[in-house]
Amino acid sequence: MSVYDVIVIGSGPGGYVAAERAGSLGKKVLLIEKDQLGGVCTNWGCIPTKSLLNSAKQYRHALESEKFGVSCSNVVFDLSIAMKWKQETVETLRSGIQFLMKSNHVDVVNGEASLVDERHVAVAETVYEGEYIILATGSSPAVPPIEGVRGENVVTSDTILKIEKLPESLVVIGGGVIGIEFASFFSSVGVAVTVVEMLDEILPMMDGQFAKLIRREMKDVTFHLGSKVQKITADGVHFVDAKGIQAFAKGSMVLVATGRKPNLKGFEALQLATTKAGVVVDEYLRTNIPNIYAIGDVNGKSLLAHSASRMAEVVISNLFGSKSMRMRYHAIPWAVYGIPEAAGCGLTETDAQKQKREVLTAVVQMRANGRFLAENGKRASGLCKIIVDAHTRVILGVHLLGPYSSEIIPAAAVMIEAELRIKEAKEIIYPHPSVAEIIKDALYAIDQTV
Amino acid sequence: MSVYDVIVIGSGPGGYVAAERAGSLGKKVLLIEKDQLGGVCTNWGCIPTKSLLNSAKQYRHALESEKFGVSCSNVVFDLSIAMKWKQETVETLRSGIQFLMKSNHVDVVNGEASLVDERHVAVAETVYEGEYIILATGSSPAVPPIEGVRGENVVTSDTILKIEKLPESLVVIGGGVIGIEFASFFSSVGVAVTVVEMLDEILPMMDGQFAKLIRREMKDVTFHLGSKVQKITADGVHFVDAKGIQAFAKGSMVLVATGRKPNLKGFEALQLATTKAGVVVDEYLRTNIPNIYAIGDVNGKSLLAHSASRMAEVVISNLFGSKSMRMRYHAIPWAVYGIPEAAGCGLTETDAQKQKREVLTAVVQMRANGRFLAENGKRASGLCKIIVDAHTRVILGVHLLGPYSSEIIPAAAVMIEAELRIKEAKEIIYPHPSVAEIIKDALYAIDQTV
Repeated sequence: MSVYDVIVIGSGPGGYVAAERAGSLGKKVLLIEKDQLGGVCTNWGCIPTKSLLNSAKQYRHALESEKFGVSCSNVVFDLSIAMKWKQETVETLRSGIQFLMKSNHVDVVNGEASLVDERHVAVAETVYEGEYIILATGSSPAVPPIEGVRGENVVTSDTILKIEKLPESLVVIGGGVIGIEFASFFSSVGVAVTVVEMLDEILPMMDGQFAKLIRREMKDVTFHLGSKVQKITADGVHFVDAKGIQAFAKGSMVLVATGRKPNLKGFEALQLATTKAGVVVDEYLRTNIPNIYAIGDVNGKSLLAHSASRMAEVVISNLFGSKSMRMRYHAIPWAVYGIPEAAGCGLTETDAQKQKREVLTAVVQMRANGRFLAENGKRASGLCKIIVDAHTRVILGVHLLGPYSSEIIPAAAVMIEAELRIKEAKEIIYPHPSVAEIIKDALYAIDQTV
Repeated sequence: MSVYDVIVIGSGPGGYVAAERAGSLGKKVLLIEKDQLGGVCTNWGCIPTKSLLNSAKQYRHALESEKFGVSCSNVVFDLSIAMKWKQETVETLRSGIQFLMKSNHVDVVNGEASLVDERHVAVAETVYEGEYIILATGSSPAVPPIEGVRGENVVTSDTILKIEKLPESLVVIGGGVIGIEFASFFSSVGVAVTVVEMLDEILPMMDGQFAKLIRREMKDVTFHLGSKVQKITADGVHFVDAKGIQAFAKGSMVLVATGRKPNLKGFEALQLATTKAGVVVDEYLRTNIPNIYAIGDVNGKSLLAHSASRMAEVVISNLFGSKSMRMRYHAIPWAVYGIPEAAGCGLTETDAQKQKREVLTAVVQMRANGRFLAENGKRASGLCKIIVDAHTRVILGVHLLGPYSSEIIPAAAVMIEAELRIKEAKEIIYPHPSVAEIIKDALYAIDQTV
């Protein structure tokens, strides 16, 4: 049995990137995947949902473009075709990952891995040896013990991607990113959607003003905030609302989107330190066992595909690369691909208050932005909020709500990562007209000096 | 007669931004505009074209979304409604500028300005005095002396915005940004379009590989490169093609988009140094007359709205601000809002060769990008090319062809402006899935080390 330089367990955006980078450096790499290459992100997460949301967006465009001079009739949304397109996208990307593994000489084994000891991993009868092991097993939908949660009408973010026809009505339990993206999709294609959220506001990572505006923009969705679900029945969800009143939301289908739990199965043989959030890691993504690392959702640090990929780079750099790196979390953007989109990077005002950090902030409306206006009109909603350190004047956070937010936010990520001060950031030139120009307007709203 | 701190002639994206910034600093400002507030950009350029291109994009979506599960029938494009929407957009932005001028206490005078002497500007019978004068008079379509160019079927980028119905066929003379954007618009809404370009390739500021791909993507447009127009007749354009053969392109309408010329009228009383490109300025945008500055198209340095705005900031900063700045041109992005979009910032490979600068480059296809694939499919075209200094490894240029290019390019502008090296740029985290991630892939294609 030959020894691998590194064994990676799990082939999501953490695992496959780790395998790819190590392989590209000429290392001997084994990648173990129990299901499909690409993990949740490619198969049941980021990619399929964005494919469906794009279909929904095209449907809304077809319905709502008369003002732009485009009329049509008999607009029909066909879920089966949208699902077929989604599936093609997923399969193309999966083959892409397969190709990447091959071209970087990564051995790929299909099966469920279990740790035997610090250097050995078993898949069925075979045991592999690795100098280092990277745990990248991801997370799964957490299904809380609600009465009726095993009912036939109840789906998770995994199983909802297999439905063959649109439900008549949908209740989404949980107003996080996953819940809101699905609510946006189903509502956009004409399903009556109700969101029941336990907290006082949806999308907790987001600035409160933004979350409120997103709710307002999701006109056809009914929101019940501060509401506690009691039971799920065949026709919907019973809950106690924010005023303590017993209430009911009708739904022929119920999506449980109440969070995710780390996939820790197979780690039992070792004394791996874990918490409810996942495997405990330090800033180098090291677990308590010296040659074992944990990246992505399984360490619970930042449940985002691109965080997992970045963690992969950090680990591979530290193991085999040119540079010792720590995993930093201050410039990781996030995006919600609803209709409208939202994205952010860095601190919110609430974060700053919690950290007792003195900041300057400004919020500007997109309504005065040329491209936004040309493509959306003056009654559409869009915001940009910027948070700047009051003393150093370094940019700490940028938050966007409006079209293209997810593609604009990288500019903010660069500013935050490069620690630009407001004076320097104001010198950046944006193409005109672009929605991205709103960042400059927000910077000037904080500091008018030239 | 009271003395103004600064008199600004022309209210385009150069002039109105100069007036706004000076006003916001408490300066006494006069803004003179001979036509509409906002200049060419707001009224006959950037904004109306992007509004129309958005209408065209919606029309293509309605026609081509069956693969996404969206079907519809009787798809009709109505130019009059698209024009009405465009007009509303323009008027809203114009009111916005008016409001900005008012709130920054800028005096606005409507009329044609002429310089009387170094400190005095006349508008009709009234003469105004200013300590500084900023020339921001812009440019106009240059109409070459072609036989038939005054024909009724010939339009410029100004007059084409007033047409009431779509032409049966269109010949565009000139394959620069203006020509290509109009070709894209008319072709997308079903008009037979021919582009006749004198040079060997369209879009000369763009990497040749990109320009070629754009031509390929504009499937319904006929291109004649290396072709010299001889005369325009009522039914089209006669030209000599690249092989020296006499040819004819049919067009019930002919758009002359062969460049722009600086608006120098009214400057005759002074010995202002000019060339064919415009008013001569130094890196501080100073003309040869000490208290007179020239910004935007009129100085011919960079014929882009956002360059004009940046020049305005530079001048106001130098006159009244906190910091002495030079106008720098190395990180100004550009965008072509055709279908597909393209954008770039910094050096092309050709620029680098001309400068005898050793560079590393990589081109990557967007086809492996998750979002691109989900929204466009694997047969769609998209590219990202990056140019890095071979010695310092600083990023010098980023070029994009594909959806969202114009909103992604600001991230590149920040990288180039902040002089990030490839190693630093590779640490930037992008939301997944986003087309913007392609920048990271291109960086890794140049340098695989971690």
